[in-house]
Amino acid sequence: MRLALTPSTDSGDYPFTHRVRTRFAETDAMGIVHHAAYLPYLEEARVALLRHLGHPYTELRSEGVDLVVLEAFVRYRRPLHFDDVVDLGLAVGAVTRTSFQLAYLLRVEDEVRATAVTVHGAIDADGRPRRLPGWFTGPQFTRP
Amino acid sequence: MRLALTPSTDSGDYPFTHRVRTRFAETDAMGIVHHAAYLPYLEEARVALLRHLGHPYTELRSEGVDLVVLEAFVRYRRPLHFDDVVDLGLAVGAVTRTSFQLAYLLRVEDEVRATAVTVHGAIDADGRPRRLPGWFTGPQFTRP
Amino acid sequence: MRLALTPSTDSGDYPFTHRVRTRFAETDAMGIVHHAAYLPYLEEARVALLRHLGHPYTELRSEGVDLVVLEAFVRYRRPLHFDDVVDLGLAVGAVTRTSFQLAYLLRVEDEVRATAVTVHGAIDADGRPRRLPGWFTGPQFTRP
Amino acid sequence: MRLALTPSTDSGDYPFTHRVRTRFAETDAMGIVHHAAYLPYLEEARVALLRHLGHPYTELRSEGVDLVVLEAFVRYRRPLHFDDVVDLGLAVGAVTRTSFQLAYLLRVEDEVRATAVTVHGAIDADGRPRRLPGWFTGPQFTRP
Repeated sequence: MRLALTPSTDSGDYPFTHRVRTRFAETDAMGIVHHAAYLPYLEEARVALLRHLGHPYTELRSEGVDLVVLEAFVRYRRPLHFDDVVDLGLAVGAVTRTSFQLAYLLRVEDEVRATAVTVHGAIDADGRPRRLPGWFTGPQFTRP
Repeated sequence: MRLALTPSTDSGDYPFTHRVRTRFAETDAMGIVHHAAYLPYLEEARVALLRHLGHPYTELRSEGVDLVVLEAFVRYRRPLHFDDVVDLGLAVGAVTRTSFQLAYLLRVEDEVRATAVTVHGAIDADGRPRRLPGWFTGPQFTRP
Repeated sequence: MRLALTPSTDSGDYPFTHRVRTRFAETDAMGIVHHAAYLPYLEEARVALLRHLGHPYTELRSEGVDLVVLEAFVRYRRPLHFDDVVDLGLAVGAVTRTSFQLAYLLRVEDEVRATAVTVHGAIDADGRPRRLPGWFTGPQFTRP
Repeated sequence: MRLALTPSTDSGDYPFTHRVRTRFAETDAMGIVHHAAYLPYLEEARVALLRHLGHPYTELRSEGVDLVVLEAFVRYRRPLHFDDVVDLGLAVGAVTRTSFQLAYLLRVEDEVRATAVTVHGAIDADGRPRRLPGWFTGPQFTRP
């Protein structure tokens, strides 16, 4: 495993926050949000972070840079339910020339529900690894 | 609306059948399969029909033909539950030079659960309408 | 079919609007939003409408009223793409003592992308049809 | 993290195998299967394993035992594409009185595509942790 981050449960450790509201379609027959639905929440939060930094993902893709998910880890601490308003904290770490990692904290009204880590790599239009754009390694990215 | 087919509830009217088993991830907090999960079932059955006819969808796509969904209609008659084994009957109709329609019957152990209709059009790699391949208008397609 | 509404393409016909942003997870290998992803958009907009009317869906469910989807129809007019901001217009119609219908208009920057209709019925905790709460048949609901 | 298993890339280490075919609905605009779609594959394989062992998940649920996902980890090694036929190998490990873990190997025609680990706990109808049924700790489960 390349997972290098250990996500904190202290919201102060997450410089960027994105809010989502859970959908009924994302619940399951246990009456809670299905565990697979968390990954699109993390992705939506990443997309919001890139937009916030002035480098929207659509711009990256039009420049021939795609970001692939190399690894994903989620720890489900307490369930999410339908219509919960979830605050996702994001923190960047473990940045290399071709990859970076994100730690996530999911809270509902300050109660921790889950933590997560994703590992990302940059590829070109042919699917080959390539360097991340320069701003990825600068403080603007790692300290949003 | 272009919907031209009225799906029968008689399984004898459906020349091709495809079987799926519902997933837990597809259920919702009402304890039944979520209504949005039916559309991927229909799609999986269409893909199976094309494979059965000797023209798999991947081959169509590599030839520059994409099939887009123009309209979709589902009537939910009785719910599906987790782990149900669903037999999807398919019948082709309303074939034109650039479009066709499919009627569907979803049953579990001969009990009707849903009926559906989808309307499809052929487009080229640039997203423009194009003629369907010739075999689409022949009896092999309309009578699988 | 019970579908009784013909959704207009004039945004002025839709008293309530809800906005969603498409997710990357909802796109498919054609590079557009997959047709099955529209149904959760419609559902999210319905939930927002009920909240706006002061009768959130979670409250309905805790009172033992569930709303089931009896029929769904979508007409895909122009594709949605990743990161599109979609304005969903909603209009209520065909209200009976146990069911109602909703018409939807999906636009991106005033360009029509899709129209849709869903048919809903009220059931009790045992899955049997029951009367809709009184406010469903009043002008507050049908004219949000 | 509780993750205790390191999934091998040798198919001989996985006593049980389940096959799925990827759906078009599961692809994304990169032309590959979206990373969130893997979790339902793992779940479908777990359900198939329980059925194979003579203790289907529906039976467990009717006995008041629910299995919750406490953690999930996926390493995406090479992408999956539409219509790929995926063989999922499963191996049980780290069994305690209230939890167990599963390691997964995803292959397409003997080429490794992904590895994964999930951590599961047993809960009762009120959501409280409870002991796993006895057969979970026996060799039948850990050596399917």
